[in-house]
Amino acid sequence: MGLVDMRNIKIKVRYKGTNYCGWQSQINGIAVQDVIEGSIKKVTGEEVKLIGAGRTDAGVHALGQVANFMTASSISDKRFPLALNANLPDDIVIYDAEEVNIDFNARYDAKGKHYRYCIWNSRYRPGLFDEYCYWLPHEVDMEIMQEASKIFIGTHDFKNFMSSGSSIKNTVRTVWDIDVCKRKEIIYVDVKGEGFLYNMVRRIAGCLIEIGKGKRDISDVANLIDNEGYFFSYMTLPAKGLFLVEVYY
Amino acid sequence: MGLVDMRNIKIKVRYKGTNYCGWQSQINGIAVQDVIEGSIKKVTGEEVKLIGAGRTDAGVHALGQVANFMTASSISDKRFPLALNANLPDDIVIYDAEEVNIDFNARYDAKGKHYRYCIWNSRYRPGLFDEYCYWLPHEVDMEIMQEASKIFIGTHDFKNFMSSGSSIKNTVRTVWDIDVCKRKEIIYVDVKGEGFLYNMVRRIAGCLIEIGKGKRDISDVANLIDNEGYFFSYMTLPAKGLFLVEVYY
Repeated sequence: MGLVDMRNIKIKVRYKGTNYCGWQSQINGIAVQDVIEGSIKKVTGEEVKLIGAGRTDAGVHALGQVANFMTASSISDKRFPLALNANLPDDIVIYDAEEVNIDFNARYDAKGKHYRYCIWNSRYRPGLFDEYCYWLPHEVDMEIMQEASKIFIGTHDFKNFMSSGSSIKNTVRTVWDIDVCKRKEIIYVDVKGEGFLYNMVRRIAGCLIEIGKGKRDISDVANLIDNEGYFFSYMTLPAKGLFLVEVYY
Repeated sequence: MGLVDMRNIKIKVRYKGTNYCGWQSQINGIAVQDVIEGSIKKVTGEEVKLIGAGRTDAGVHALGQVANFMTASSISDKRFPLALNANLPDDIVIYDAEEVNIDFNARYDAKGKHYRYCIWNSRYRPGLFDEYCYWLPHEVDMEIMQEASKIFIGTHDFKNFMSSGSSIKNTVRTVWDIDVCKRKEIIYVDVKGEGFLYNMVRRIAGCLIEIGKGKRDISDVANLIDNEGYFFSYMTLPAKGLFLVEVYY
């Protein structure tokens, strides 16, 4: 079958990351990608390779993951969500599909992403929604956290905000906007940017908490940016509080 | 030990109902009450009987359940939450405790309660938060549901809104207020009242959906109120979308 027969389908996906080893296929564990590829095979009979915009880690959730795959099937794009969902578990759902140009690549064409980190900030643990937030029992200064969040905006070397396991060489990334707000017991850290290093959002949120607790000054954290020679250890917040909200094209 | 030595402790509890057979002890399954009584025994050494304000069903959640127990222990009331939480699972949390008059009874002294029912209203299932909502894929008319909700306000015979398994004789109850609103994909049905029959909130929410879908008129549902001679069948919405928000004293 020639390439001329192939169609490129872009899908939008929500999932609860709790029971998966992340988006991308791994040697051990079941990945969200594997499960969706299995559903596509049931619907089209084809073994496809699904390209995801963001490789979310084990336990990270998605409200707006985007992916694409090539198919020779003649199923109309608008019928794909219901057909695929019929073969997916409750914690993964395709909520949009459209046929796009054959050259579209969900990963390389992404212009940016919006991530949200959710912190349950109360003396007592949440009890409900435990799989969707990190519990911070300490009181924090919201005003100083809001002020501090702005130091991350712009194009910077974020090497000190990448987990040590990563082998990426170019650690310069552009953050467009970052916002910290509290509604009832929940602190939301919203980060939008062109690209992110491994664990970058979870580490930015961890730094903001250090500042909010008064353990570090804004200047300490500002020193971590664009500054390979300086470092202090702080917490990388757990995966379960992180959501991939949207991918921009 | 004489009654003179006893103290009455009132606690506030949040829990995720998913893994429990409800609030109240049953022959089969683990009840939230059992788990908290177990924790009190570990902390005080006493076998207490915990009195809960609302007997939530299996799968129903609570943001503000209230309960009380008698103890001869000298632990200060403000220390109870942390002490009890240390022996409770992640899905149950005590977030307030205070010593109250020896006559206080969480069940009989309750003046009223606030329940919330959450409906995920979208063509595609939620994917996340599935244990906390009922999925309604149909489009509904929010304006007519809001209008219809007001027919339940007041003192009425709600016999047609009680599940048939119940043996209660007096089926007259007073609803203070009811409100239906939609924020993004979620419809919230908030009901406040003096008392509720078995499954009453889940049945009121089920009726409102029938009206919203256009399957029944407001007058059909109004006919179910104060009218033992009239009935039509409709859905009792599942437990997982229901929250006990607050108990009023």
